[in-house]
Amino acid sequence: MPINNSTHIANYDSALRALGDNLKRIRRQFSISQEQLAERCGLHRTYVGAVERGERNPSLTSLLRLSHGLGIPLSELVYGVDQ
Amino acid sequence: MPINNSTHIANYDSALRALGDNLKRIRRQFSISQEQLAERCGLHRTYVGAVERGERNPSLTSLLRLSHGLGIPLSELVYGVDQ
Repeated sequence: MPINNSTHIANYDSALRALGDNLKRIRRQFSISQEQLAERCGLHRTYVGAVERGERNPSLTSLLRLSHGLGIPLSELVYGVDQ
Repeated sequence: MPINNSTHIANYDSALRALGDNLKRIRRQFSISQEQLAERCGLHRTYVGAVERGERNPSLTSLLRLSHGLGIPLSELVYGVDQ
């Protein structure tokens, strides 16, 4: 197993943007508004919007709220954010 | 796509413990100490220990630091935590 010595992903901003893109794309696929998703997740609509813009660094439980609100596995929501 | 109406996963604690179990198991598979992993990730050793005990709710970027420090995809680190 190749252990990569560099300890930090160069640019976490791109990971947060990739997460936001995933969230927006999947939400739209299911024709759910930010408001509807926020209500399902017990999160504020403005928070959902900020995550979609890559402006928030959600915790694991917030990620689980979002994936659960969409009815998808967590792995699908975070797919590719570490590429 | 079945949208589950319950907006919250009943018990986020179990998700955090599942993440901790994943982290400990994978870290041990690669024979890395908490200290070594913390150093690779730019995190404090006590933080790594707390995550392993399910006592922390890591952000996405902390999860990426941990998966990157182990040299594994994020999806492997969070595998099954939403079960």
